[in-house]
Amino acid sequence: MKLSLNGELTEAAEARIAPDDRGFTLGDGLFETIAIKNAAPKRLAAHLARLRDGAAVLGIPVPYTDQKIAELAAGLIGANELTAGALRITLTRGPGARGIAPPEAPTPTFMITSGALPPDDPLRLIVAQGTRRNEQSPLARVKNLGYLDNIIARREAVAAGADDAVLLNTQGRVAETTIANIFCLIGGGLVTPPVCEGALPGVMRAEVIRLARAEERPIEVGELAHASEIFVSNALGIRPVLHMNGQEVGDGAPGLITQLLAVRL
Amino acid sequence: MKLSLNGELTEAAEARIAPDDRGFTLGDGLFETIAIKNAAPKRLAAHLARLRDGAAVLGIPVPYTDQKIAELAAGLIGANELTAGALRITLTRGPGARGIAPPEAPTPTFMITSGALPPDDPLRLIVAQGTRRNEQSPLARVKNLGYLDNIIARREAVAAGADDAVLLNTQGRVAETTIANIFCLIGGGLVTPPVCEGALPGVMRAEVIRLARAEERPIEVGELAHASEIFVSNALGIRPVLHMNGQEVGDGAPGLITQLLAVRL
Repeated sequence: MKLSLNGELTEAAEARIAPDDRGFTLGDGLFETIAIKNAAPKRLAAHLARLRDGAAVLGIPVPYTDQKIAELAAGLIGANELTAGALRITLTRGPGARGIAPPEAPTPTFMITSGALPPDDPLRLIVAQGTRRNEQSPLARVKNLGYLDNIIARREAVAAGADDAVLLNTQGRVAETTIANIFCLIGGGLVTPPVCEGALPGVMRAEVIRLARAEERPIEVGELAHASEIFVSNALGIRPVLHMNGQEVGDGAPGLITQLLAVRL
Repeated sequence: MKLSLNGELTEAAEARIAPDDRGFTLGDGLFETIAIKNAAPKRLAAHLARLRDGAAVLGIPVPYTDQKIAELAAGLIGANELTAGALRITLTRGPGARGIAPPEAPTPTFMITSGALPPDDPLRLIVAQGTRRNEQSPLARVKNLGYLDNIIARREAVAAGADDAVLLNTQGRVAETTIANIFCLIGGGLVTPPVCEGALPGVMRAEVIRLARAEERPIEVGELAHASEIFVSNALGIRPVLHMNGQEVGDGAPGLITQLLAVRL
């Protein structure tokens, strides 16, 4: 399996990240996950726009044009002979001296890797008790490398016999799951938390909101029990949620809106 | 300059971190910064105890005994011929497949690096407006790799002409600076925020609390203006704060308690 590192195709088993890369030492970077369909990245323009927005928040220069990044992605997809799968673009501030002060002239690390698509079968979710998502940080709007709160919540879910967890924000309202945005059909209306509540501004989320005319509004944790349909979305797809905190959602089968959107997106 | 990677001394310029190391891809790890004095790590036992506490929170196995880690640290200090400086021990969950699910049998990455001691001259601080520290996450008590909120606050401080920033927690009270705990002399009493307010449980912080009989209590941001003395502490030392939000602290010279502690610790 090959990857693309700073513009060069390399065997993953030989590719070297420097031990002083700030992505490794300080989580100082961000990434995008992008579906590969028909041997091409899906919604690449939207993902690269979000990558640039996030990099601007962090003050990390993006070393390539969108055109060049598209060429690098196509080169990797070809080299690994992929027709379907997942691309990941990782951008870090690159190597740095000891301490957190960013280098004045950073030399960013730009890596593209590829992998298989995850399953899209139904999920059992719990609401994570062990940690909260910080919607008061601009990082809640940036797909940054800091995934430890999500990892803690995932470990809690698996320990409880579930597949994944809903993260609440610091006010105790619904934010997202550890890897996806969440949508709930409540009282006949499709709702999802606004970005200011700690929902990552997902590329697929925007598509769902547009197509299904979902309403962005705060969701109290208690409302989850009253949802007749719940699904989660990320760049790799849409998955029905059939159990929430051990309780069946709706009639226990994937809902109609979920199924229609999964086929359409 | 050499480093120690998974038990082997290696030239830093040749050491390789794998591109799928979860420390690099997800910030899935933690670290310790330790002072080197007289060619030996200072307070190593306390640092290793904190490393083990944090690794237990994250579910990352520590691959060596304290004795073995002490030997590796001594080996690196010797190889780099250091009498004074800073050690950093980094522990990550090691390589992993795509996605956030931790591997069932992780092979952690254990790295020790060394560098120079930073300056200990007085600081000008601001209170960061751009982000908040999430005291509602257990990660606030773990020196984990996720330093982006701190980096955002540091960038804000430097842009404002200051040296560093105070991070407030999600309730708007004082937590710490981007790299240190904070102590304030207010009304004749030395106070510091408790750990539950978002203060990292610093090894040096514990020493200061013990030696100077500091009181742990929540600190409202407005109280900073009434402090007659402010200093910050981390494993590498104690530094006076002479300006807070552009205003002189006390008489604008390092305070007596700060000076006494800096000499003693």
